[in-house]
Formats: sequence, C-alpha cells, structure tokens
Amino acid sequence: MTAIRDEACIVGLGETEYRRWGGFQDRSELQLTCEAIQAAAADAGLDVDDIDGVVSYAMDRNDPAFLQDAMGLPNIRFASQAWGGGGAASCASLQHAVAAVQSGAAHYVAAFRGLCQGQSARYGKFNAARRGNNFLAPFGMFSPPIMMAPMIQRYMYEYGVKQEHLGEIALNARANAHRNPRAVMRDRPLTMETYLASRLIASPLRLYDCCQENDGACAVIVTTLERARDLKARPVRILAAAHMNTPGWGAGPVGTHNMPIEDYGAGNCASVAREVFGRAGVTPKDIDVAQIYDHFSGLVLMSLENFGFCGRGEAGDFVADGHIRWEGGDLPINTSGGHLSEAYMHGFNLILEGARQIRGESTSQVEGAEICLVTGGSGAPAPSAAILGV
Amino acid sequence: MTAIRDEACIVGLGETEYRRWGGFQDRSELQLTCEAIQAAAADAGLDVDDIDGVVSYAMDRNDPAFLQDAMGLPNIRFASQAWGGGGAASCASLQHAVAAVQSGAAHYVAAFRGLCQGQSARYGKFNAARRGNNFLAPFGMFSPPIMMAPMIQRYMYEYGVKQEHLGEIALNARANAHRNPRAVMRDRPLTMETYLASRLIASPLRLYDCCQENDGACAVIVTTLERARDLKARPVRILAAAHMNTPGWGAGPVGTHNMPIEDYGAGNCASVAREVFGRAGVTPKDIDVAQIYDHFSGLVLMSLENFGFCGRGEAGDFVADGHIRWEGGDLPINTSGGHLSEAYMHGFNLILEGARQIRGESTSQVEGAEICLVTGGSGAPAPSAAILGV
Repeated sequence: MTAIRDEACIVGLGETEYRRWGGFQDRSELQLTCEAIQAAAADAGLDVDDIDGVVSYAMDRNDPAFLQDAMGLPNIRFASQAWGGGGAASCASLQHAVAAVQSGAAHYVAAFRGLCQGQSARYGKFNAARRGNNFLAPFGMFSPPIMMAPMIQRYMYEYGVKQEHLGEIALNARANAHRNPRAVMRDRPLTMETYLASRLIASPLRLYDCCQENDGACAVIVTTLERARDLKARPVRILAAAHMNTPGWGAGPVGTHNMPIEDYGAGNCASVAREVFGRAGVTPKDIDVAQIYDHFSGLVLMSLENFGFCGRGEAGDFVADGHIRWEGGDLPINTSGGHLSEAYMHGFNLILEGARQIRGESTSQVEGAEICLVTGGSGAPAPSAAILGV
Repeated sequence: MTAIRDEACIVGLGETEYRRWGGFQDRSELQLTCEAIQAAAADAGLDVDDIDGVVSYAMDRNDPAFLQDAMGLPNIRFASQAWGGGGAASCASLQHAVAAVQSGAAHYVAAFRGLCQGQSARYGKFNAARRGNNFLAPFGMFSPPIMMAPMIQRYMYEYGVKQEHLGEIALNARANAHRNPRAVMRDRPLTMETYLASRLIASPLRLYDCCQENDGACAVIVTTLERARDLKARPVRILAAAHMNTPGWGAGPVGTHNMPIEDYGAGNCASVAREVFGRAGVTPKDIDVAQIYDHFSGLVLMSLENFGFCGRGEAGDFVADGHIRWEGGDLPINTSGGHLSEAYMHGFNLILEGARQIRGESTSQVEGAEICLVTGGSGAPAPSAAILGV
C-alpha cells in the first residue's frame, strides 16, 4: 500500500443558507447536508457520483450510509469522523480528507458539517443527557459559555485585558458581516455602547461575546493537486491541516485539575500552532488573513497570542490598535463575520471563508491574500488548524 | 502538504485477556484500553509517548483526550473514528491509521477497540435508546441476530444450504479455540450433535451460530515500513485496508427496501472485496489464511463467496469439504477461534490474529503463511477488509 506523493487542495465550496437555530422547519438536517455537498461538487465541476469519501465530526448525525442512499452515491470508500467533536474538529476533518486523498484511500472527499439544532437539541443549552453534564451541573457549569467564562476571567485578570477588548472582537465580526449577504447578523448594527450595555451571560461574557447558534450545512471537496488540474475551480492548496490534543484538558475547561494556574488563562492552541506552522513551512508573519475560531470573544484574544501574532497578554492592545480590521488592519480576521455574526457551523464555515479569501471571492476580500490561517476550537481538549494558500 | 511515499505496516500487537461480558468488575473500559495500547507499544519496542495518533470506531467511548490524560501521552495529533460503528469499522480503522502515517499526519498510530459492556449496555441486546430501534421493535426486530436471521434464511432457501453447513463454521471456530489459551471458549468442546440440539435464537440461527459478547481490549501500532526498520518487532505489511459503503443498505439489513430480493441473501462484501484485492494487487488464490468476520455463522458463508473463494451458493459445500479447517484445509479461517469462540472484539481481534499468522505466531499457525485476509462486518452498511503480508 504505497502513498501517492501529491499535495491536497480544496476544489469545491458548498453551503446552504444559514438561519437561527430552529429556522428550518421544512428541511431536515440530512437534506441540508446533502444540499451543501451537492453545491460543493457542482462548484468543483464534479458529479456527486465522483465523491468517494466523506468526513465530518464525531458528533455529526449525517451517517455516510444515509448520505449515500439519499444522494445515490455509488462508491463511498473512506468515511471518518474527527474525534473531539464540536468546533475543535473542523480543521481535523480537513486533515482526514488530506490523509485520505494522499494515501489513495479516496480521490474526492467531501468534508462537511450539517446542523439542525432546531430538530434535535441545542449544543449551547444544558442537556442532562450529555456525558459528564450531571457531574458539572451541581457546580453551576450548565453550558459552554459558563464553562469558558472562568478561563477568560483569569486571562483578563492576569494581563489587564479590558471588556472593550472583548467587545472589539464582536464589533469586528459584525462589521465584516455587514458586507456578507450570507451572514445571519448582516443587518444588525452593533456599537461599543450597545455591546457594553448588553446583558451578561456569564461574567465576563456578554450577549455579543457568545457565538450564535445556527442551523445549516457547509461542505468542501478535497482532492489532490494533480486531479484538481482537470477541474473548473481554482484549487486552494492545503499547506497543512493539523489537530493536536492538549494534555491536561481531558475533561475540557472544567477538568483542568493538573494544570498550573497560569496555563489555565493562557489558551491551549500553542501546540497546534507549532504543528500547523511547522508542517506548512510558514510563520505567523506570512499570514495575510485569518479565520479565528470565535465561539467566545475572549478565546479569540488568546488564540491570537497562541498563534504568534502578538506576545502573551498583548492581544487586547493588538486588537484595540486595529490590526484585525478589514479596513486598515494588517491581519484582518473573521472576514465573513465569523461565528459571532455570520453563523456558527462549528468552525466549518470558517474553512469556506478561508478558501474564498485564497480564491479572491470574499465579500471582505483582503487584497492579494496568498496565505490564510483557519483555526478550529480553543479552550477544549483538541484544537485544530489549517493553513490554506494559493 | 506532501505525502511521504511509504508503505504502512503493523509493528505492535497488544491485548488484555478476554472475558464474558460483565467479566471485568475491577477494571474500567478505559483501563482495559490503556492496557492494550501499552502492550502493543511494548510489543513494538516503542515508548507509549511515541504514539501520536489514535483511531477506533464511531461507537468507541475511549476518547483520545481521556486516553491522553490516563496514559500521559504528550502528543496526539491524529484522532479518528471510522464511521459505521460496530464490527464493520475494524479494518476501516486500520485504513485510517494507514492514511495517517502515509500522509505524515502521525508517525505511530494506535488503532484499538475497547469494550466493557458489563459496565454500560450490551450491543447484542435490545436497547430502546438506540437510534432506530423503536421503529424496528414493533416488527419484532429486537436485536442483531433477529435482524440478520432473515438474510441467512433467504440465503439458505436460495442455494439449498443446510443447517450443518452453518454448524461447520461454529465447529471450526471451536476447534481452533481449543489451541488458543486466550480463547474464552477454549475448554468447551462442541460436536455437531450438540450444535444441532442447541436452542434456536432466531431461525435459522442457533446458540452456537451467534458470536459471544465479551469485554476486553485489543490494539495494534501502525507506522511506515521505513520507521519499522528501527523497531524490534517483525513488521506485518498492510498490503491494503479498505472500507466500502454498500448502496441500498442505509438502514442496515432491515432497511433494504430498494434492493432486489436476490441481493438480500447474497451478502454485501463483493464491493469491498474488489476494492481490497485491487488495491493489494493480489487475488483470492493468493490468500493463505483468512480471518472472516463471524458475528453470525451464515454470513461467514456469504463472505467466503463474496471474497471469491468459491462461487455464489457454493460455500456450504466448500466448508463441508474441509477447506476452512486448520488440519488439512487449503484456506484455514478464524484460526484464533474468531468471534464465535475466541472473543467478540467487534472484528479487531481478527486483525491481531491475522498479524500473528504473518509473524508465524498463531496457536493454529498456517505453515508458510505469507498473505492473510481479514474482513470486518457483513450484512451491515459498510463492511471493511484488509490484506496483510510478510
């Protein structure tokens, strides 16, 4: 079993519209997922029958066997789920797709995320049936924002980060969303005053610090650069896709029992950053634009530090200085509006936006963008990241 | 991101003892899994810290984050689950491990299956909480043997296969188990008389036609042939590992609504057989020994046909003629006792036995065995298979 030596790339992008959770009463999660995959195949100039691999997250309900019957796919020969679930697995699923096409296990892999929380259960809401939750609930740890808040609290205490610094992450996302017709929050202006007056969800997180919860689906098609030559879409090279479990985070942010207190508020993306930059052979200075996983604003600040765009504790000032803004910034981030203002597809829509930047098709296009960083997850056991290039 | 052109191989085998389900009151499923992985690393001559990838099945509960904390693994950078669950995913997880090491995503991947059904729920028992079961139960489809029985019934009707042909699968497994000290059924002789007199579970399946349910864990370490040169164990080459979703089997054996009746009793491994033989570059004639997924005896007969060892409908006579026996047969199968008599680790212990045959270490060693077929699943949506070689 000999590997084909070839680079992997993204050749197709597909997505449904995004709606508030519960927004789809007429289309099932499986249907939305099929629509996104069909759109990605069409964008690549492929017939859906050409798809011979599918990858998603551990928690995805859209089993390849059901996809196959629903879409009539004759030949699914690679099917993986990225362990880790949630958003942390987004770029991990891309890593699996790369491994599949490079090892020859499949030729055209659809990586996707489909979500219809209105038809099942909301991820962001306390769910007594979810493993571990009954051990956390007695301590008041009911839902993701409550679990993440103490880390962000610690981070702000440690480095003198201000509420307005968190607010800048939310305002930047909203500003970019206004240019993006897909963004669920495109028509809702947000000012710092409104932000600061918004209700607390879990101190220090206010309403606009927390990502949306949305329903929809998105997908990309991955193949080798050699096969991409025959396709109509401009290939987006996957310079690296990485996934890194972080020791000590076994039970997530509330299970960090064996971690020094200074690490608790430091973010946990430093190891995946080393891995993805090392494998891609680029440095933070080479990144033209980034899509940083924004489930909660404070963790975006930590990620900016973990990925080396500024020093530890400096991200507050970094964003206050305008570096992340599309207008005038040297590292525009979350150019679609991100999870806070486009939609929360558990990190996967950030991959599509990263690819659009490389194709020159973003609604907040960074001129001459050649290298884009996409991150998946933070503050949870296994963050991931990818670097895309022209 | 460029793939390393190298072959993949198995360099370490590890397993706990196997017990009847519920047999472990003192060790958790996570502990058993860690023990198996540690044993596999030791067998390879690796430190557990060298393991940088973990793969298992969609249903496995032993999350990499927990494994990492429990075993102190510093560097897990590939973590996948083979979609499909159950036994069908066994050789699919091997396929993922191959893809990981060939793409360079990880260097030493532990593929494993850990089961402690005594501490959770039995897979073979009706479980109202399992998806779909509440739609099946009203039709009497309570558990796997009941779901598989009609296919086997149809197969027997179509080809004149006799109860004794099914019995030969059980007797062969038991005979091999007697030579295997790991086998749970090693000390329990089985005659055709006892077999024929045993109670019906779901016609035509009698007690001994059905696999055991066991607790335990087993693991292998996969790396590249180049890295294997520095290790102490004799590498077992993975000539191919394949996974093939079979259209029309979306909801499993009871959901074959869009399938011609003649296909219903034909088995569904023909496509994965083509894939695995094609990728390995060998034919059924080259196979010296095989580990055929034996959840239910009748499906072993169909697999023998699907993998090309005899023609359609001929497997009954094929096994009656002694071909599959260790003593005197030209295609010994299930040399550890298989699922029927060694243990049911959802297909994964068959991979270890396949590797032992190639290393010359089986308790029912086939002399000069150079190529071994291992199959995973049948009668379910996504069977898998691997071909191992010297």
